[in-house]
Amino acid sequence: MKTFLDNINKAFESRVRLGIMSVLMVEDRVDFNTLKDTLQLTDGNLASHLRALEDAEYLRVEKQFVGRKPNTSYLATEAGREAFKNHLDALEQLILNNRQAD
Amino acid sequence: MKTFLDNINKAFESRVRLGIMSVLMVEDRVDFNTLKDTLQLTDGNLASHLRALEDAEYLRVEKQFVGRKPNTSYLATEAGREAFKNHLDALEQLILNNRQAD
Repeated sequence: MKTFLDNINKAFESRVRLGIMSVLMVEDRVDFNTLKDTLQLTDGNLASHLRALEDAEYLRVEKQFVGRKPNTSYLATEAGREAFKNHLDALEQLILNNRQAD
Repeated sequence: MKTFLDNINKAFESRVRLGIMSVLMVEDRVDFNTLKDTLQLTDGNLASHLRALEDAEYLRVEKQFVGRKPNTSYLATEAGREAFKNHLDALEQLILNNRQAD
């Protein structure tokens, strides 16, 4: 029991972070508003989870100008992709263990 | 995206709660120390998550005497079993969506 729970990554526990990482696994780079609309979150809620994932070095932030407008994009890091895949594998294991017990 | 995230239940977000519910899905009733040993948690940490799941009516507590010793057991409620299954289904959907995107 303990073993596969160990592989469940606390950094991805919240569903907001599951959502953010799911988007970043598919899209190379995503801007703040796209994430916000896709996940239907408030600015503050999204920003705090993005910061936590950035602190864990699972995503990185790129700021650039589109014309004269500043634009902030978010990208999953290699470490983030790897960690998220491991997390999904651990969740899958949990699901399988529960199904077997049915 | 939003739709299947909606089915991810905040009450089960933490891995401690995933662990507790996984045990309670298999065992009809489990006492505090068994849960503590199985999940390798401190008393305080386990107690606070048990209370949260009890408040959500996903588990119930039974106190009885074994000989002269008080014994507290935890049992998943019908609502808890149903909600946990739905949560696992939502996680499975998330995993499938991510795998398809690979």
